[in-house]
Amino acid sequence: DIDAGKAKAAVCAACHGANGISVIPDYPNLAGQKVRYLEASIKAYRDGERKNPIMSPMASGLSDADIANIAAFYASLPAGG
Amino acid sequence: DIDAGKAKAAVCAACHGANGISVIPDYPNLAGQKVRYLEASIKAYRDGERKNPIMSPMASGLSDADIANIAAFYASLPAGG
Repeated sequence: DIDAGKAKAAVCAACHGANGISVIPDYPNLAGQKVRYLEASIKAYRDGERKNPIMSPMASGLSDADIANIAAFYASLPAGG
Repeated sequence: DIDAGKAKAAVCAACHGANGISVIPDYPNLAGQKVRYLEASIKAYRDGERKNPIMSPMASGLSDADIANIAAFYASLPAGG
């Protein structure tokens, strides 16, 4: 559900950009990324497989449905922004 | 050095695509990604911060210069492929 993902991803825009093109050089662009890769990455932060002082807490409260929606939203954005 | 990176990234194309758009849904598109994020990610696989049965061995033999060149190459590609 892309709309639900867009709503849930409002907080993500601060780093990853409203259009999925990151505003900070160290943080990845997410626009047009592979949806399954996005899901796996967010889950890796939520479940501790990947550790990052910002992403781990960001992902910690997300349900599988939230993650699927957020991933669908970013994957739906044009890759170049 | 984008040309050196392109040469070094020949092996990466099998999964990430010759144009940096992944051919496998679970693997990320790299075209147009942030160069510093690409560098940090490849180093994370090389140095064990990220563990993946394919990426870890792929990254293990790379020097810092190799990684900088590969990252520069993929970052230089058009984001949409």
